[in-house]
Amino acid sequence: MPNKRIQIFDTTLRDGEQVPGCQLNTAEKIEVARALESLGVDVMEVGFPISSPGDFHSVQKIAGIITESTVCALSRAVERDIEVAAQAIEKAKHPRIHTGIGTSESHIYDKLKSTPEKVIERGVAAVKYAKSFVEDVEFYAEDAGRTDNVFLAKVIEAVVAAGATVVNIPDTTGYCLPWQYGEKIKFLKENVKGIDNVTISTHCHNDLGLATANSVAGVVNGATQIECTINGIGERAGNASLEEVVMILRQHKDLHYDTGVNTRLLKSMSELVSSKMRMPVQPNKAIVGANAFAHSSGIHQDGVIKSRETYEIIDPLEVGVDESSIVLTARSGRAALNFRAKRLGFDVSREDMEYYYEEFLNIADEKKVVQDQDLIVLFSKTAVKSA
Amino acid sequence: MPNKRIQIFDTTLRDGEQVPGCQLNTAEKIEVARALESLGVDVMEVGFPISSPGDFHSVQKIAGIITESTVCALSRAVERDIEVAAQAIEKAKHPRIHTGIGTSESHIYDKLKSTPEKVIERGVAAVKYAKSFVEDVEFYAEDAGRTDNVFLAKVIEAVVAAGATVVNIPDTTGYCLPWQYGEKIKFLKENVKGIDNVTISTHCHNDLGLATANSVAGVVNGATQIECTINGIGERAGNASLEEVVMILRQHKDLHYDTGVNTRLLKSMSELVSSKMRMPVQPNKAIVGANAFAHSSGIHQDGVIKSRETYEIIDPLEVGVDESSIVLTARSGRAALNFRAKRLGFDVSREDMEYYYEEFLNIADEKKVVQDQDLIVLFSKTAVKSA
Repeated sequence: MPNKRIQIFDTTLRDGEQVPGCQLNTAEKIEVARALESLGVDVMEVGFPISSPGDFHSVQKIAGIITESTVCALSRAVERDIEVAAQAIEKAKHPRIHTGIGTSESHIYDKLKSTPEKVIERGVAAVKYAKSFVEDVEFYAEDAGRTDNVFLAKVIEAVVAAGATVVNIPDTTGYCLPWQYGEKIKFLKENVKGIDNVTISTHCHNDLGLATANSVAGVVNGATQIECTINGIGERAGNASLEEVVMILRQHKDLHYDTGVNTRLLKSMSELVSSKMRMPVQPNKAIVGANAFAHSSGIHQDGVIKSRETYEIIDPLEVGVDESSIVLTARSGRAALNFRAKRLGFDVSREDMEYYYEEFLNIADEKKVVQDQDLIVLFSKTAVKSA
Repeated sequence: MPNKRIQIFDTTLRDGEQVPGCQLNTAEKIEVARALESLGVDVMEVGFPISSPGDFHSVQKIAGIITESTVCALSRAVERDIEVAAQAIEKAKHPRIHTGIGTSESHIYDKLKSTPEKVIERGVAAVKYAKSFVEDVEFYAEDAGRTDNVFLAKVIEAVVAAGATVVNIPDTTGYCLPWQYGEKIKFLKENVKGIDNVTISTHCHNDLGLATANSVAGVVNGATQIECTINGIGERAGNASLEEVVMILRQHKDLHYDTGVNTRLLKSMSELVSSKMRMPVQPNKAIVGANAFAHSSGIHQDGVIKSRETYEIIDPLEVGVDESSIVLTARSGRAALNFRAKRLGFDVSREDMEYYYEEFLNIADEKKVVQDQDLIVLFSKTAVKSA
């Protein structure tokens, strides 16, 4: 069975960049955009041009540079927004306008002070207007996660008829459970006329820690584009992490999906975005965290030393990490200590190891992490033991 | 329909504490244990007593102090481990021994160099031996996530017959997809004799970013205990985040679950563990990250100002966060600027706002985040405009 190609739509420079403290200048945005192109993302959303002159300028510059990936600009379902977005991406080789409107009751009544019918009208008008500038128009149904599925299907059918090439189903507030989000995509796939001719996109937020799971649930139910960001940055608790969704599709081979991402660049991409945007990545972040491939407990270290597969489902090299580290602490076992001893050139007999291990535990209880220099001092004490 | 009570098993002081750099001394462990008791966790796993004298000592101290929560100690399916664990928790009001063995092919053949039959024998013997010390014995089937369901059911049935009160089904390598993990729990629930008399526990790792989703999938399929840690710390990419699973069960009222956790302490608990263990929490971490309730884009700010529900599914107060912040950046809109102006005491007319907004965008493009002092300077320029 051939793998189905899932499109990766990166929005680090739009949803990520709008986070407090993450704003980049034009030169920095260009640098990140070039790196994303090398990474192999299919689409990059690089800004919301109407929002400020600086953002417009950055989008325009990037559109003139990127040739492989589609360059996408955000707009609301407002004529002026769409015009400015179109102008900003005029020079792009593969331009896309992303436009849309809120479809949940909360958005229709509280935020837009509108009605369901008018919202559909505005969505259709926006898509048609965007189509007058570019062929590739993506529509977002904001807060689709909390939108009634029957009404959502009606909206999507109308914008597909109006010419949308991609329909984005955002879980804007990060509220859906994976099976609920999956069912939503399935409902659209089964009930919207013309849906098979367009791309269904996921856009999941992480407010409950479910963005990655929801994106994958969307894909197995018919979505073929995932919107995500490097390190999962984005509004509030952020978006689905690009590195997580890409590695899930890569590792679960039985699902028969793949992406165009060069996974060996994931770690360096993560570091670039983290440093440019001043957004630290926690050590326990999946795939790209400093500890993602570190083993410290004795039970785990013993397993990894015997066979990497025991505790590792990803070869660290595959995501650009040098090697899984064996860190020595008071929770480490004899196998790890012996492994490290050998690497340092000490050949310790089984019975001598009992003595060293007791000593090691005392050092570890005191020092927390035991470094190579501590081990050299420790193993140099042979005289004491041999005497 | 009454809510079903899900047990929260915190392993911050065991799976979390074994992470490189996270080691705590006894006084620090006691402080965290007391805080966990106030938080309302049902069980706290506080160490692996055989691993080092320091760890034994800490478990023993905590066992003498904690009275509300069950105090649990980890052991392998090894007599000496179990004896030492039993000794460490001797004084606990509610003691539990957690023992177990690897059940996947990788663990049985590569790590243990054993056979499926011998592994079952060792598991049964360990449970029986632990029962000779305490009534409450939890069994873990290490790497259950990659264990064949039929064999896993055989293991679990044997240890339940041997007296296990809780059976833990760990996705040790963090490999399962939510529906796969859910099906595993369902399979056990339907195929293991005596399963209805014991507690099924989830223990999910986050290597692919799915620990939270998998835990919840386990619960809806019959698990009634979730093993998790504060901030999701733990081996490699960590464990399911306590704050995420608790808030999912709390917010999704239609699922009819609840826990005994006092959610208003979640934020301070997160800060305590992060500072004691020197493990930073990234700003975009769900529930407890610095940005979890921050809104900066114009579209979002406008929505939140009109009605909090538009973009927020959790009242920040409910998890102990003071208020959702409106941060002003170049992506902020007029509504947010006006909201902040009012809070600072400036009453700006609609037409004057156009002028201020243009000026604001110039400041924001340059300064990234616009502070109150910048706004005071800006809005004090009325003379220019009125002139």
